[in-house]
Amino acid sequence: MKSLTILKIGGNVIDNPKILESVLRDFAEWQNSKLLVHGGGKIADKLLLKLGITPTMVDGRRVTDSATLDVVTMVYAGLINKQIVAKLQSYSCNAIGLSGADANVILAQKRQVVGLDYGFVGDLETANVSEKTLTNIFKSGFVPVIAPITHDGKGILLNTNADDIASSVASAMAKNFSVQLVYCFEKAGVLHTPDDENSVIDFLDTALYERYKEQGIFTAGMLPKLNSAFAALHNGVDEIRICNPEGIKQGGTRIKL
Amino acid sequence: MKSLTILKIGGNVIDNPKILESVLRDFAEWQNSKLLVHGGGKIADKLLLKLGITPTMVDGRRVTDSATLDVVTMVYAGLINKQIVAKLQSYSCNAIGLSGADANVILAQKRQVVGLDYGFVGDLETANVSEKTLTNIFKSGFVPVIAPITHDGKGILLNTNADDIASSVASAMAKNFSVQLVYCFEKAGVLHTPDDENSVIDFLDTALYERYKEQGIFTAGMLPKLNSAFAALHNGVDEIRICNPEGIKQGGTRIKL
Repeated sequence: MKSLTILKIGGNVIDNPKILESVLRDFAEWQNSKLLVHGGGKIADKLLLKLGITPTMVDGRRVTDSATLDVVTMVYAGLINKQIVAKLQSYSCNAIGLSGADANVILAQKRQVVGLDYGFVGDLETANVSEKTLTNIFKSGFVPVIAPITHDGKGILLNTNADDIASSVASAMAKNFSVQLVYCFEKAGVLHTPDDENSVIDFLDTALYERYKEQGIFTAGMLPKLNSAFAALHNGVDEIRICNPEGIKQGGTRIKL
Repeated sequence: MKSLTILKIGGNVIDNPKILESVLRDFAEWQNSKLLVHGGGKIADKLLLKLGITPTMVDGRRVTDSATLDVVTMVYAGLINKQIVAKLQSYSCNAIGLSGADANVILAQKRQVVGLDYGFVGDLETANVSEKTLTNIFKSGFVPVIAPITHDGKGILLNTNADDIASSVASAMAKNFSVQLVYCFEKAGVLHTPDDENSVIDFLDTALYERYKEQGIFTAGMLPKLNSAFAALHNGVDEIRICNPEGIKQGGTRIKL
């Protein structure tokens, strides 16, 4: 089976141009088939505030009215995506920027929650990712760079969580590839003691994960990341790594079933 | 030789959602290989003003400082491009949105004018368009939707005139396709009497064009469009049509060498 590495970069990586550049330089050098998923960062919030729109978050998810959707589409699929693509091209990495609407790679459903209207927020499952189209794009020699904007197939764009996109894409691609998924964010990995960057857990499997969870050592921010990581492993993803930019080559926490 | 139709839609088409929808519906139905190039419209100007940046135009071209580049990248390659792609997908047209940086389809040079700094503005030639990559994209079954943002290959995005992109792409593709280029904008075609929409010139060839030019009947806005049209014809493009949304199927002015 061919190898595929999927890199997810979070907001804190995107917000620091120097760190972003070094991460993209590392990514450009990877020899396998590869794919990048990026989040949003603070640029969208700054632009919303400048335009007099107050960002509204519920459980860490952005409530997305029509004006907010326009802003996140501009920032995520326009500014951040094209800046990353241009940088990667300058490192001889043949990047192609995609939202979920482009080539219909990711279809999503508008989030339905009783009693709360999230607006134009998309949820997705593994089956919503067109692994056939992505495989086609790899075969053409392109490196997909995916922005966290999807569509509903009826002409409407949807703001979609980048971690969810990364794990769904990884799960979908696991059908035909041996997939490694790397989450690159501000922490050095999964920490045994919150805020102690020297307490990185090198390796997690299901048994260790369950034991640590019982001991309550995972932060509220890390828990959904880990749940989604194990879900992806159960879907056939080979290995997941959680690291910071310095550890992108082989540091951080390695997770296997 | 296989046929390829390239549609360029201008700002006035983009600024009116109903007209844009009807144009995209028509485009989705075209059976040939096809490609869409879109301009910017007034959304960028409105956003610039909201952000306190005064748009500066010289000879109809936007002077593009760094803050302005961010805004046009967001609006052209993000908002407008993805809205068009999502709409086309909803009409079962497998659109894929591209800036020039994506898959390195269009490289440009930062404009060099003695005594005037246009900032991040790109100029391009036929040789800057990768017809090989675009052909590859057609073969994968995708319909390219190109935003007027290119790159310099060194990591810098460049604001680029959409008419220039359309004619350079048409010229490049003429190597291996029989290309028809359709400019869709607010006027019914090339007019014999400015402002008289009933005075559309049905057909122009080199001789008629030279005669009318001598008679001074072309407006200052139309002349560069026609010059670029004839340049594309000399580069091997088969036919050019200039029309408005109502005439998109077969109306407007037909131009051949």
